[in-house]
Amino acid sequence: MAEKITGTMKALTFVSPGKIELVNKPIPQPGYGEALMRITTTTICGTDVHILRGEFPVKSGLTIGHEPVGTIAALGPGVTGYKIGQRVIAGAITPCGHCDSCLEHHSSQCGGKAMGGWRFGNTIDGAQAEYLIVPDAMVNLAPIPDHLTDEQVLMCPDIMSTGFSGAESGNIQIGDTVVIFAQGPIGLCAAAGARLKGATQIITVDAVENRLQMSRKVGADVTLNLKNGNPVEEIMRLTGNRGVDVAIEALGTQQTFESCLKVLKPGGTLSSLGVYSKGLTIPLDAFAAGLGDHKIVTTLCPGGKERMRRLMNVVASGKVDLKPMVTHRFKLSEIIDAYELFSSARDGVLKVAITP
Amino acid sequence: MAEKITGTMKALTFVSPGKIELVNKPIPQPGYGEALMRITTTTICGTDVHILRGEFPVKSGLTIGHEPVGTIAALGPGVTGYKIGQRVIAGAITPCGHCDSCLEHHSSQCGGKAMGGWRFGNTIDGAQAEYLIVPDAMVNLAPIPDHLTDEQVLMCPDIMSTGFSGAESGNIQIGDTVVIFAQGPIGLCAAAGARLKGATQIITVDAVENRLQMSRKVGADVTLNLKNGNPVEEIMRLTGNRGVDVAIEALGTQQTFESCLKVLKPGGTLSSLGVYSKGLTIPLDAFAAGLGDHKIVTTLCPGGKERMRRLMNVVASGKVDLKPMVTHRFKLSEIIDAYELFSSARDGVLKVAITP
Amino acid sequence: MAEKITGTMKALTFVSPGKIELVNKPIPQPGYGEALMRITTTTICGTDVHILRGEFPVKSGLTIGHEPVGTIAALGPGVTGYKIGQRVIAGAITPCGHCDSCLEHHSSQCGGKAMGGWRFGNTIDGAQAEYLIVPDAMVNLAPIPDHLTDEQVLMCPDIMSTGFSGAESGNIQIGDTVVIFAQGPIGLCAAAGARLKGATQIITVDAVENRLQMSRKVGADVTLNLKNGNPVEEIMRLTGNRGVDVAIEALGTQQTFESCLKVLKPGGTLSSLGVYSKGLTIPLDAFAAGLGDHKIVTTLCPGGKERMRRLMNVVASGKVDLKPMVTHRFKLSEIIDAYELFSSARDGVLKVAITP
Amino acid sequence: MAEKITGTMKALTFVSPGKIELVNKPIPQPGYGEALMRITTTTICGTDVHILRGEFPVKSGLTIGHEPVGTIAALGPGVTGYKIGQRVIAGAITPCGHCDSCLEHHSSQCGGKAMGGWRFGNTIDGAQAEYLIVPDAMVNLAPIPDHLTDEQVLMCPDIMSTGFSGAESGNIQIGDTVVIFAQGPIGLCAAAGARLKGATQIITVDAVENRLQMSRKVGADVTLNLKNGNPVEEIMRLTGNRGVDVAIEALGTQQTFESCLKVLKPGGTLSSLGVYSKGLTIPLDAFAAGLGDHKIVTTLCPGGKERMRRLMNVVASGKVDLKPMVTHRFKLSEIIDAYELFSSARDGVLKVAITP
Repeated sequence: MAEKITGTMKALTFVSPGKIELVNKPIPQPGYGEALMRITTTTICGTDVHILRGEFPVKSGLTIGHEPVGTIAALGPGVTGYKIGQRVIAGAITPCGHCDSCLEHHSSQCGGKAMGGWRFGNTIDGAQAEYLIVPDAMVNLAPIPDHLTDEQVLMCPDIMSTGFSGAESGNIQIGDTVVIFAQGPIGLCAAAGARLKGATQIITVDAVENRLQMSRKVGADVTLNLKNGNPVEEIMRLTGNRGVDVAIEALGTQQTFESCLKVLKPGGTLSSLGVYSKGLTIPLDAFAAGLGDHKIVTTLCPGGKERMRRLMNVVASGKVDLKPMVTHRFKLSEIIDAYELFSSARDGVLKVAITP
Repeated sequence: MAEKITGTMKALTFVSPGKIELVNKPIPQPGYGEALMRITTTTICGTDVHILRGEFPVKSGLTIGHEPVGTIAALGPGVTGYKIGQRVIAGAITPCGHCDSCLEHHSSQCGGKAMGGWRFGNTIDGAQAEYLIVPDAMVNLAPIPDHLTDEQVLMCPDIMSTGFSGAESGNIQIGDTVVIFAQGPIGLCAAAGARLKGATQIITVDAVENRLQMSRKVGADVTLNLKNGNPVEEIMRLTGNRGVDVAIEALGTQQTFESCLKVLKPGGTLSSLGVYSKGLTIPLDAFAAGLGDHKIVTTLCPGGKERMRRLMNVVASGKVDLKPMVTHRFKLSEIIDAYELFSSARDGVLKVAITP
Repeated sequence: MAEKITGTMKALTFVSPGKIELVNKPIPQPGYGEALMRITTTTICGTDVHILRGEFPVKSGLTIGHEPVGTIAALGPGVTGYKIGQRVIAGAITPCGHCDSCLEHHSSQCGGKAMGGWRFGNTIDGAQAEYLIVPDAMVNLAPIPDHLTDEQVLMCPDIMSTGFSGAESGNIQIGDTVVIFAQGPIGLCAAAGARLKGATQIITVDAVENRLQMSRKVGADVTLNLKNGNPVEEIMRLTGNRGVDVAIEALGTQQTFESCLKVLKPGGTLSSLGVYSKGLTIPLDAFAAGLGDHKIVTTLCPGGKERMRRLMNVVASGKVDLKPMVTHRFKLSEIIDAYELFSSARDGVLKVAITP
Repeated sequence: MAEKITGTMKALTFVSPGKIELVNKPIPQPGYGEALMRITTTTICGTDVHILRGEFPVKSGLTIGHEPVGTIAALGPGVTGYKIGQRVIAGAITPCGHCDSCLEHHSSQCGGKAMGGWRFGNTIDGAQAEYLIVPDAMVNLAPIPDHLTDEQVLMCPDIMSTGFSGAESGNIQIGDTVVIFAQGPIGLCAAAGARLKGATQIITVDAVENRLQMSRKVGADVTLNLKNGNPVEEIMRLTGNRGVDVAIEALGTQQTFESCLKVLKPGGTLSSLGVYSKGLTIPLDAFAAGLGDHKIVTTLCPGGKERMRRLMNVVASGKVDLKPMVTHRFKLSEIIDAYELFSSARDGVLKVAITP
């Protein structure tokens, strides 16, 4: 039995739109079925920036962040099969494993609520702290294989899971042509996922050249810079006017969404990722009357320890190399600076690593 | 070898928006792979009314109609496996069987074109005539079982195929709760299809009482009259605030589409049917950010002789009784009156039967 | 807080092959995540007879039975969302909800072990007793709707779930022809399931006339008595030599398995149910070289409270009426007689209801 | 209009078990819907060796071979969309595109007959000749992209299509562990396919070292030589006793089939490829009672021009490099020698290329 961990810890909290603060909070104690995780590495997500800006509302005082890598510090009653000190990650989405949604395999919508599975840094305290309570620990804690470093698995909790799910929900087949609009971290992982699923022509679109360079490294066959012309026309030309089998939308703007519909072949699938910061409208006739037999699929980052196990296997296999995505490193004490850099998208930043 | 059929025939043609005309045309001759069908029964579809109104543009002089029941009058070169005089139907959608879309199982999008499989009364002469050329006859002509009457199989070419596909594309599971917005002929068939696929709570919504009565006959467990209150609230109450597993949209208006999204459970599927007469917009955050893990699926009436064979089997099995859907009968010479009745939706009209 | 329930209870235990005994045992106490259920109705399964005969080995002294209907008597620590006295059922299979198999939607194989989800009356004490410990209670306890009686939901924990899964795993489509070999309780539920999924020609085969009569009531269109000739030939005749789309095997003998393969169309699916009492062999060339593109799918009764909720919805909807399947009723004190009747298959017995 | 091609051609025919002969035959003329193809490259398949040995019976005098690469020499009436001289391939399986099986997406079982889609060198004259009649040409002729050589696309008609389908039918997911038993040409393509579909641990098994070397090149992470120990034990060790998600069987012997079942995780899929030369038996309890929730899926090489287009795209993308699989080259006049080499499996032969 490990000694009880008490005292205070540093935690990054949301205060009000535009304002976050690194504060001291008591180290929480795990209840039934929960675990206390000591965070050794975490990162910042685009969604956290939406929260900071007040575009996605959370309670004042909440610790934010949902991408935890660390070790088990304490286990609550009823939690078996884990050891204190074990290296683990948990997904950004932490399903409970027992509600109807979880049992029906919609665990991102845990509790029958839209995005109900997203708890860290949304409805409970998150990972940008020294310690983190992981609810339903036996569903969510995934041991890290010994030969992988913390930073190597840092993309698993959210970015890889979300990006790959864009390719999975799009039901990519061997020989498919796939376009991914936007090549931020999630779009890059969607490109890597499209490659993993057997797409043979992967086209990516962005306006930032260093993101397109990274895109070619992780799987793009052709990259289109928005600044160099109309990507819709170019994609139709590249596909011999056939259109793409699957279009993945990884930004959440009216323009990228409509562009996806315009390049989609009749019978194709639009796979939409992530969280939108404002309402979009889509012209329905563009796909119903104008094209036909389309699917629009939205996916929120799949979670649970089995998903994490698989993603860490992908890392271990070397089939996808996402190491270059961590472009900058900060201490937790410098996290405000990290937000400043990340939200400005300057200096070629893709993802930052935050360590204690 | 049958004698060649020559001379002229009556055919209902589109002239200009608001104007259709019953004219004499030469009886066409089947080319390679085609068949000439003598029409014994046909009907009018809501889409034909869109054409009449100029909302869906076709060439002036085109014969309209896409729901043929009849006999084989002549076979073009290369067509084997059929006999002159054989009773047959063809689907509203007539796939070619050999293009990439057909080989990839998107035959409604034949030729890689949006709705490319819809040829009758759209890109080639249609079924509201005495004779009809059926292209790719070996893909499309489905023999009628001896014990079924023409009128019994009149719903197969379009209405049943489209309506059932709403339930099929929605991937309804045993025990699902399903709502269908609008109970015109296609919505009624969607309700019947939901029942066939194992939904156990089927809720239908319309503003016309006799359609709701028919709805209860074909499969609805609960019917909601739009005139008696807000169906969204009532559906949430009926489902214990859970929402429905699958929402089927069978009208094509902004209001029905948004209502579907509002009652859909997180992780649910919106299955959208048919052809819209004008552009709609959907508020994307209603499903992406607001709900999550949704699918929106659009389906155009599946065609081909195997589909027709299965639908006629459904009729033969007695598991669905759509006979009461034919509410009025006309001669081809009276077809202008039939359009007038059908497009006004009066006298409880659901579908009309047109015979020579 | 309810009072603690202590003392002894009656429980039917396996002693040795051929010998079962009704004994007194201490009423067990629920641990973390568990619930104590007071059994108000239960039944006997064919698998229990295999256990009795020593064909499926379990530990001596184990309470058998896996089909519990009852009320919540006590809740262990960590269990929330339930009330003492609440009417509930649990599935024959009780997944944990947190192992990799459960998170990958193979919950019948919980823990990564073959049939690992089957715990009641197999690896832990079962339901043929006055009280039952339900493990992972929040995953498994499904509230009974008020308007349904205990006996109405008695088929849900195993028979309906297993039988319907035969139809579900077979991926039955609208218009399919389906054959079910053997019309014991599970085969009857498979016929009902085939009807629920949209099969339009359901053929059932058995050697017992009253089972075939029951079969027609729950969904069979054609019944074949093994005593009246070769069912394989008759099925090929009924399908115009086409074969069936899906063949469901609900007995587990060499003969029924091979018959399924013989009547299966090229590209069809053999869906195999339940637990075999001895090794079978199948001639592989019969499907690989001889037929081609076949699937053989085996399914073990899906469990979990969401599955139970859906099955109780099916009962409530009246779309399937399985009431006549309970042919005999016994007190728990008479359970040895009930086994004697049930295992002899005499007096038209299908299922028995056991009450305290 | 091209001149009519007449005269005689060389063709390799089956005479009697153990005897094949290169003979002169009249150059055939294409009928309705057919094309005449001039063969520029073809190859020999393991199935051809089964035919030679009399293990798979065909008519005496039939030209064998089913892997054609060439140019269009003549088009029959009704064939449009192609040009004389165009470079094309056709799949080993030539679906008709209009029968019920084709319309239901079981085109390998064309005509509702087991392996009915396999016509070349089975029910009609095949590709080991100077000319070949391609039936249903518009369904089957796939243009070769200009920048690909004949030899580069030689694996598409059968080997790639069959091997990849083993991975596709197994429904491989990102992060899966997959084993492939036997690393002949089809097994090698199955390994490449498993990699294309996102498997992250691919284990291959064979007894021939140079095949295992090739296996590592196309996708295997771990190779096991049967001569070095029991692969079943080693696979269970490699998977931490978890078993594999998908096991692919690419040989067709009792031993490989049973080994697959032994290493399959509960809930896993056995994907079986190709044509067996004799009846096998599988111990049913090994998967039904002993493991549970298994699938066994058999797949025959998918055909049709769209499939061929996709496979040529895979070649063009460079994501799979199968060039080293062509180990030897022969003239058609030397084809008897080629059979001798290929059937003896000596000199490291994998596939041979046969040119005029």
